[in-house]
Amino acid sequence: MKTNRRRERTTSHRTDVNFLPPGLEGGQYRPLSDEAVWQIHAAALTVLERTGVEVQESECRDILQAAGARVDARRNRVYLSPELVEGTLKLANRRVVLYSRDEKFDLHLHGKRVHLGTGGAAVQVLDLVSGRVRESCLRDLYDLGRLVDTLNNIHFYLRPVVPRDVANDDIDVNTFYASLAATGKHVMGGCYFPEKVAELKKIGVLIAGDEKSFLARPFFSLNLGYMVSPLRFARETLETVTLAIRAGIPIVLVSAAQAGATAPASLVGTLVQTIAEELAGFTYVQLVRPGHPTLMGGMPLVSDLRTGSMIGGTAELALMNAASTQMAHFYGLPIYNTCGITESKLPDIQAGFEKGLTIAVTALAGAHFNHHAAGMLESLLTVAYEQYIIDDDIGGQVMRLVRGLEVNEETLSLEVIDEVCNGEGHYLGHPQTLALMQSEFHYPHTADRGTRRDWEEKGSLDMRGRARLQAQQLLQTHYPQLFSPALDQQLRDSFNILLPRDQMAA
Amino acid sequence: MKTNRRRERTTSHRTDVNFLPPGLEGGQYRPLSDEAVWQIHAAALTVLERTGVEVQESECRDILQAAGARVDARRNRVYLSPELVEGTLKLANRRVVLYSRDEKFDLHLHGKRVHLGTGGAAVQVLDLVSGRVRESCLRDLYDLGRLVDTLNNIHFYLRPVVPRDVANDDIDVNTFYASLAATGKHVMGGCYFPEKVAELKKIGVLIAGDEKSFLARPFFSLNLGYMVSPLRFARETLETVTLAIRAGIPIVLVSAAQAGATAPASLVGTLVQTIAEELAGFTYVQLVRPGHPTLMGGMPLVSDLRTGSMIGGTAELALMNAASTQMAHFYGLPIYNTCGITESKLPDIQAGFEKGLTIAVTALAGAHFNHHAAGMLESLLTVAYEQYIIDDDIGGQVMRLVRGLEVNEETLSLEVIDEVCNGEGHYLGHPQTLALMQSEFHYPHTADRGTRRDWEEKGSLDMRGRARLQAQQLLQTHYPQLFSPALDQQLRDSFNILLPRDQMAA
Repeated sequence: MKTNRRRERTTSHRTDVNFLPPGLEGGQYRPLSDEAVWQIHAAALTVLERTGVEVQESECRDILQAAGARVDARRNRVYLSPELVEGTLKLANRRVVLYSRDEKFDLHLHGKRVHLGTGGAAVQVLDLVSGRVRESCLRDLYDLGRLVDTLNNIHFYLRPVVPRDVANDDIDVNTFYASLAATGKHVMGGCYFPEKVAELKKIGVLIAGDEKSFLARPFFSLNLGYMVSPLRFARETLETVTLAIRAGIPIVLVSAAQAGATAPASLVGTLVQTIAEELAGFTYVQLVRPGHPTLMGGMPLVSDLRTGSMIGGTAELALMNAASTQMAHFYGLPIYNTCGITESKLPDIQAGFEKGLTIAVTALAGAHFNHHAAGMLESLLTVAYEQYIIDDDIGGQVMRLVRGLEVNEETLSLEVIDEVCNGEGHYLGHPQTLALMQSEFHYPHTADRGTRRDWEEKGSLDMRGRARLQAQQLLQTHYPQLFSPALDQQLRDSFNILLPRDQMAA
Repeated sequence: MKTNRRRERTTSHRTDVNFLPPGLEGGQYRPLSDEAVWQIHAAALTVLERTGVEVQESECRDILQAAGARVDARRNRVYLSPELVEGTLKLANRRVVLYSRDEKFDLHLHGKRVHLGTGGAAVQVLDLVSGRVRESCLRDLYDLGRLVDTLNNIHFYLRPVVPRDVANDDIDVNTFYASLAATGKHVMGGCYFPEKVAELKKIGVLIAGDEKSFLARPFFSLNLGYMVSPLRFARETLETVTLAIRAGIPIVLVSAAQAGATAPASLVGTLVQTIAEELAGFTYVQLVRPGHPTLMGGMPLVSDLRTGSMIGGTAELALMNAASTQMAHFYGLPIYNTCGITESKLPDIQAGFEKGLTIAVTALAGAHFNHHAAGMLESLLTVAYEQYIIDDDIGGQVMRLVRGLEVNEETLSLEVIDEVCNGEGHYLGHPQTLALMQSEFHYPHTADRGTRRDWEEKGSLDMRGRARLQAQQLLQTHYPQLFSPALDQQLRDSFNILLPRDQMAA
């Protein structure tokens, strides 16, 4: 009997239903009071009106001036009134969807819906075979994308590495080609040169079949560092922003100030500056094209003030990114923020706790688009293949946290408790237990839950060791064919595609 | 100039002020709505009235019956009315302090004040020299206590291991002797036999000097598993509870139901049962001695339903322990709960993320007494010396999270932003930065924040390796002399003390 039950529990474990779908609602963690949210908003408006933003002579400056912003041409500063900022903010898109080639991976970025994904742009990889650090290359972009394509708790693919083996002029096109060839999930990347926006759009149109189809469901987006903190519009990137808006490609307005270096050492001061920077960006976007799909990309970072270097795996960073999420909820805007960074050079216990803590916190705050949540090591310099496998398990736990507790008559279980206490005295065999074992509990794929004996018999591997084996196995087998041969030929005829076709199959 | 500033930042780093003192207020994370809290409370009252609690014939049963509880003697069940439960609950102590020999370590367990500490009772240790697993012994209890004595973010010492080299009859006395000799922080432990309560009290009185002094500031407490889930009073332990109450020793009412095994598979159902168990315990305590210092010890656990074994490093456990914290806040009672468990067999990345995630979550919920928050591996079976060093760093990050963001005119930094944007363009040299560098940011002792080159030059050790070296160094030097020679002699004359005196000095 006991054996039968155990067998029943073991065999009835289903993996075809995802009880932790992307987009579960967070928001249970709120580092800011409602009053504090208002104070930060008011302070950001004051900064924009009084301190203003540096903008060189440009189309952007002309557009802001035409909308009523006061320009000090001698000092290249533009001052934005609360009326202008709040007036344009009303026009912002509050139902942004980042589409995917495969509809089931669409990211609906409203409410407090949580998604986890990769980030970049690292310049190094821990080689999966040697374990040693080396420069990242185009093949890594494709292979990491294939891994991510198989992992349930990594919901989008932001290009994690810079292909150091590709010439600058070819980077943008090849980054998007390799990423889109590797995964059907939403792809995001940068755009190094304004003139490449048109080429990227052409890739999108070729893949979608025609322009209308691409514009209806653009399946990639651009994260653009339009702001050099503190409060300076980046002239060339702003050109890219403008071109992307006009091309119909969704964008993220990335501003990544470092508390104590490019923003105040006061974490709250850094939030104020970040929100001011984001509001300036949103004002500009609405003036170019009201409602263009745009994410707030204020992702406050931290400096180690003893050395001045950027530090990512910290409580302070998690606090600020959770707080900026609350600000985004206040505005009703989608937010792109950062978590999962670690200063560790390898997937060790430091990497583990820095990731577990920061990802849990920003996800529970309800951040829509948590990037860097998979793969990162050594601040933002390095990624490791096995880290994606590990971070998918972390993501599973985090999404389970986000799902939270559902309190209703059934879950309160009064009948179940009464039956068991007046009967068998144990719940393992109760029908409720069998009914809930898949939906109520999340089961990791790589975290160890066996006995010490089991673990020793399997070779006493730590989680990193197990994840390396899994990554190797997945890479040997998973080659999604996302481009038809005809489409692939078309892309190769149109662009200088550098990923050899023979690397794209087993 | 630049060099001077960097030197100023480096040398002005102070370590004599603790900006993250024990008892910072949590509560920013709330997994339950207010309505859900009420629903769980009402359901727990229903369970106590309708399903009742199993109580064998005993003084406890007589006391409950005398207070008006309905007893079904044939089925050994006692049914508690809402009036009895809520009436006695009013008498509970809501300002519990767990004292320490050194006043600065007193634990004030009210509001949402957060403390982190060790847990037990493991039966194995990863040997610090060989790295291999072995049985735990009395010397470990003393040595682990000495480590904890030096670590800022481990606020109390709950005996982490069972001394396997001590006969049952000598365990209780020797556990408390070794722990109290090792650290001035609050000590908590079990009590295997009711008749040992008097001996433990005698240790307390000898150390305090007289009974009155001990009772004014009892510096140790007992965590007692008075409940065998589901809903059965443990007869013998309840005797210990009663004796401890009468001896004036603070207690924790530990009930540790496992969802899906000894409690419903529904997490909410497990909470209902746990709260019912705790309320039954609190009713009894008030009937014996109203206001006796007592902690709620409902710490819901999770079973892996595929195997039935207890699993601790999970989102489900963190969710339930955060929710039971909210229930404790609702009652205004101090809570002892669990976090920091991992199923990993060693301090690897799995141990890291399971700890980071679960400790952050229960601390942010505002749990007063988070045990297992340092040292644990392999569910609750094993501890490792280096894990205490590592978990102290995790604790630092968690306490920084708990401290949160202070929003006020000064932290909003409007003047600072204006000065920098109209001046130097960088915050590193601003007076605010120097003023805040110690108070606003937490600096870990073992987590790596250097460059890859620095790290390689220091031997490319992972965090575990660095922590092992630190533990070895601390153990060689830190021998707190907490008993005068005369007191030690008195203790050795009174009891069969097994820790050799020559192990208690460098």
